[in-house]
Amino acid sequence: MADPRFFDRSGPFTLQALADVAGADLQESAQSDLEISDVAPLDKASTGQITFLDNVRYKDQLTSTKASACILDPKMAGHAPDGVQLLLSKSPYKSYALIAQAFYPATNGEGGISKAAHIAAASIDPSATIEAGAVIMDGATVGAGAYIGANAVIGKNVGIGAHTRIGPNASISHAIIGDHCFIYPGVCIGQDGFGFAIDPAGHVKVPQLGRVIIGDHVEIGANTTVDRGAGPDTEIGSGTWIDNQVQIAHNVKIGRGCVIIAQAGIAGSTVLEDFVVVAAKVGVAGHLKIGMGARIGAMSGVMRDVAPGEEVLGLPAMPAKEFMRQVATIKRMTSKRDKN
Amino acid sequence: MADPRFFDRSGPFTLQALADVAGADLQESAQSDLEISDVAPLDKASTGQITFLDNVRYKDQLTSTKASACILDPKMAGHAPDGVQLLLSKSPYKSYALIAQAFYPATNGEGGISKAAHIAAASIDPSATIEAGAVIMDGATVGAGAYIGANAVIGKNVGIGAHTRIGPNASISHAIIGDHCFIYPGVCIGQDGFGFAIDPAGHVKVPQLGRVIIGDHVEIGANTTVDRGAGPDTEIGSGTWIDNQVQIAHNVKIGRGCVIIAQAGIAGSTVLEDFVVVAAKVGVAGHLKIGMGARIGAMSGVMRDVAPGEEVLGLPAMPAKEFMRQVATIKRMTSKRDKN
Amino acid sequence: MADPRFFDRSGPFTLQALADVAGADLQESAQSDLEISDVAPLDKASTGQITFLDNVRYKDQLTSTKASACILDPKMAGHAPDGVQLLLSKSPYKSYALIAQAFYPATNGEGGISKAAHIAAASIDPSATIEAGAVIMDGATVGAGAYIGANAVIGKNVGIGAHTRIGPNASISHAIIGDHCFIYPGVCIGQDGFGFAIDPAGHVKVPQLGRVIIGDHVEIGANTTVDRGAGPDTEIGSGTWIDNQVQIAHNVKIGRGCVIIAQAGIAGSTVLEDFVVVAAKVGVAGHLKIGMGARIGAMSGVMRDVAPGEEVLGLPAMPAKEFMRQVATIKRMTSKRDKN
Repeated sequence: MADPRFFDRSGPFTLQALADVAGADLQESAQSDLEISDVAPLDKASTGQITFLDNVRYKDQLTSTKASACILDPKMAGHAPDGVQLLLSKSPYKSYALIAQAFYPATNGEGGISKAAHIAAASIDPSATIEAGAVIMDGATVGAGAYIGANAVIGKNVGIGAHTRIGPNASISHAIIGDHCFIYPGVCIGQDGFGFAIDPAGHVKVPQLGRVIIGDHVEIGANTTVDRGAGPDTEIGSGTWIDNQVQIAHNVKIGRGCVIIAQAGIAGSTVLEDFVVVAAKVGVAGHLKIGMGARIGAMSGVMRDVAPGEEVLGLPAMPAKEFMRQVATIKRMTSKRDKN
Repeated sequence: MADPRFFDRSGPFTLQALADVAGADLQESAQSDLEISDVAPLDKASTGQITFLDNVRYKDQLTSTKASACILDPKMAGHAPDGVQLLLSKSPYKSYALIAQAFYPATNGEGGISKAAHIAAASIDPSATIEAGAVIMDGATVGAGAYIGANAVIGKNVGIGAHTRIGPNASISHAIIGDHCFIYPGVCIGQDGFGFAIDPAGHVKVPQLGRVIIGDHVEIGANTTVDRGAGPDTEIGSGTWIDNQVQIAHNVKIGRGCVIIAQAGIAGSTVLEDFVVVAAKVGVAGHLKIGMGARIGAMSGVMRDVAPGEEVLGLPAMPAKEFMRQVATIKRMTSKRDKN
Repeated sequence: MADPRFFDRSGPFTLQALADVAGADLQESAQSDLEISDVAPLDKASTGQITFLDNVRYKDQLTSTKASACILDPKMAGHAPDGVQLLLSKSPYKSYALIAQAFYPATNGEGGISKAAHIAAASIDPSATIEAGAVIMDGATVGAGAYIGANAVIGKNVGIGAHTRIGPNASISHAIIGDHCFIYPGVCIGQDGFGFAIDPAGHVKVPQLGRVIIGDHVEIGANTTVDRGAGPDTEIGSGTWIDNQVQIAHNVKIGRGCVIIAQAGIAGSTVLEDFVVVAAKVGVAGHLKIGMGARIGAMSGVMRDVAPGEEVLGLPAMPAKEFMRQVATIKRMTSKRDKN
């Protein structure tokens, strides 16, 4: 079970309640009123706990699990040991996620403003929680059920939506953030983009006059930076998940449901359409268009537009299959040379 | 126009005043006393606003602009619609930057120390602004017109020059920072370099006894890290601009007027002469010398000295043209192999 | 000498005392009671100071040094100028490190809690130092001689070991940190790993129910991020040194004595055995095993397991020698093509 010093567990729940939460079907023979007290991995689960099988690779762990219940694809039901109650789901991992959320619900605090927070003439919903050391400047708004972490800084007139969580030591300015977002510790949003006119006598700063506009249900990982626009806004669409230490430059437009993994960087004015996946440490050059559902492999450097649904890889990025062929070619040529 | 919640606009200004600010010439026929109220892009500008054309690519937007005035190169003057007042400049983008600064002047606050700041025995100029939660330790000095953001931490005896701006949640120690610098949120300056003697019984820390010395008019982007020297100092020359999430290791010397773009890293003791450009995500190995005006392409890995003015690219970095030839060679060899 | 505004020097020490500290032998003829007042590099040292020679490359600086004493390998003793007292050590750099620590001992403050710190119902050892603006939440424990920097945030029930130092603006949650660790400014430890079930209707968050467990004598560089486990813990073994802006994803297990250099990233569930060296900007994919003592060259992308002691390089990473051969092959093929 999760360390109770760090996690508050809810429940127990009946198997039927969990099936409802998970959008899963109870196997006909299952004991719908069985009480389940916790989630656990296949190989760690014990009596009273529910586990899941998502990856066929772990089938062997299924056959020996000590869990009382298991979420799995109907096709895998035959591999479960006798006596394990089954929740059948076409998306076992998603069903597990929903059940784990039931046992360990996210919480944004109990409301209330710490006496050690520094609040200017801001508008804070009474149900919001503001931790010690947080600084909220004039004109900022903090929505219902929102959470502002310790020592976070919310700049003038920034908007924080309902149920949005701002981590400790985050710095937010020039931004409107939607509802149910999760901004992690150390994130910087809304600072000036990197814009200047090069001049031998000294670079001349171009005032950055746009904002950062973030939709709903967006996650932005620890120490990620999102610059505000130069004139147009920088935009991040609803449901997009961004990992740690990602850099989003000025004027970038990111669509809905995108995934951007750690240490990637998107240069200025580039557009990501919906559902784009950018893997770790990727660099995408400026002023490009990455089409809907495109996938960019880890550590790639993208220097041209990417078509919708295209999968690219390499430095410079090319179709993933072409990259694999090139890697094989270089290997073959090198080996041939060594033989000669 | 820029969102008034986040930006205070000055003006209006006459065309003549703007020409003076911009170092531009009014076209002879221009109406020098015309009042201009704001800046805007070619395709968004309307009556009373001034725009600019810098990139010939946007010539079509010029012909249809609704702006009252436009800054452009004298050669392009013939393409402007009738009735648009023209400011002629050999550097239209720089002229635009200066005009935009006039409409949206940078401000470092109105002076004064927040009651919620924590100031030890430091020396703060009365015209400096210190925000809530900022911590300024013994012996630190903060110059005239400087700004220390909320929850920033200024360590013992650190020097912050006049009109320099330190962003929220920045952490500065063991550093002397010049005038008119802009240190963004989350920046860490002056912590120990990564120096230790490897030993099977446990790495032995080498005390890092140098400082960070930063010139004037330096910008350091959000969440960038600058380690102090091991004995020599880490130095950043005047007029250098550093983007977000850049890593500067101990003993690095960066000259004047350099540009270092997001997520690049410079390893220990490397020297960048003046006006070097390091593109995004570049890695430069330690103990190298990068000559004046050299340019390092995005995502390159530099493992040798780079000559003044040289342009390198690739992993390992090589002359940019050689890299392009190598990319073409690999592509050709792979394609040939596929045909055979 | 080190700038006295930033560094407090101890001493002087006799040569014998320094030899004892350094685990070095005094040369027979040396003047054991000579007083030494400071450390300095070969070319900067003057009378009363001790220097060292570690890299044969600097032999010429040895012959002209003005230092009163020098630490060096016995084999190099013949190259020292007459009158320079010699400390003989098989590990001159390590010996220097120990002597420099004697002159400039690390200090964690004098104990005491700043009135401007915000302490909930936490357990703080009376010998610990808590700076202004630090926020320590319910149930946290801070060990003897520990130091919590200004505006750092220590979350609920977090454990900070004895003599461990937490830098300014660091954010720690869901973590147990051992003794004698040094966590630098801006570090984020313990936030949720990047875990979700992909779903067209919106990614579904998977609660991250593990912790971060850090051993003793661990260093974690500025603005590095360490996510907590998804169920298992994220673990960092004793004596491991991590540089700035490194990303450690959920469930990663790092052994003892590893070195991870700036801007590297380790993806989820990967295991690093003891004494692995990961150079700058490396990416290691998830679910891999990197064997004991393996070395991964700078900017490599590791997509497969690495054997103990293996040295890999490249994108994708391969044996370092193979990479060098491939680089040579591409160069040769390109040059040949240019000639044809």
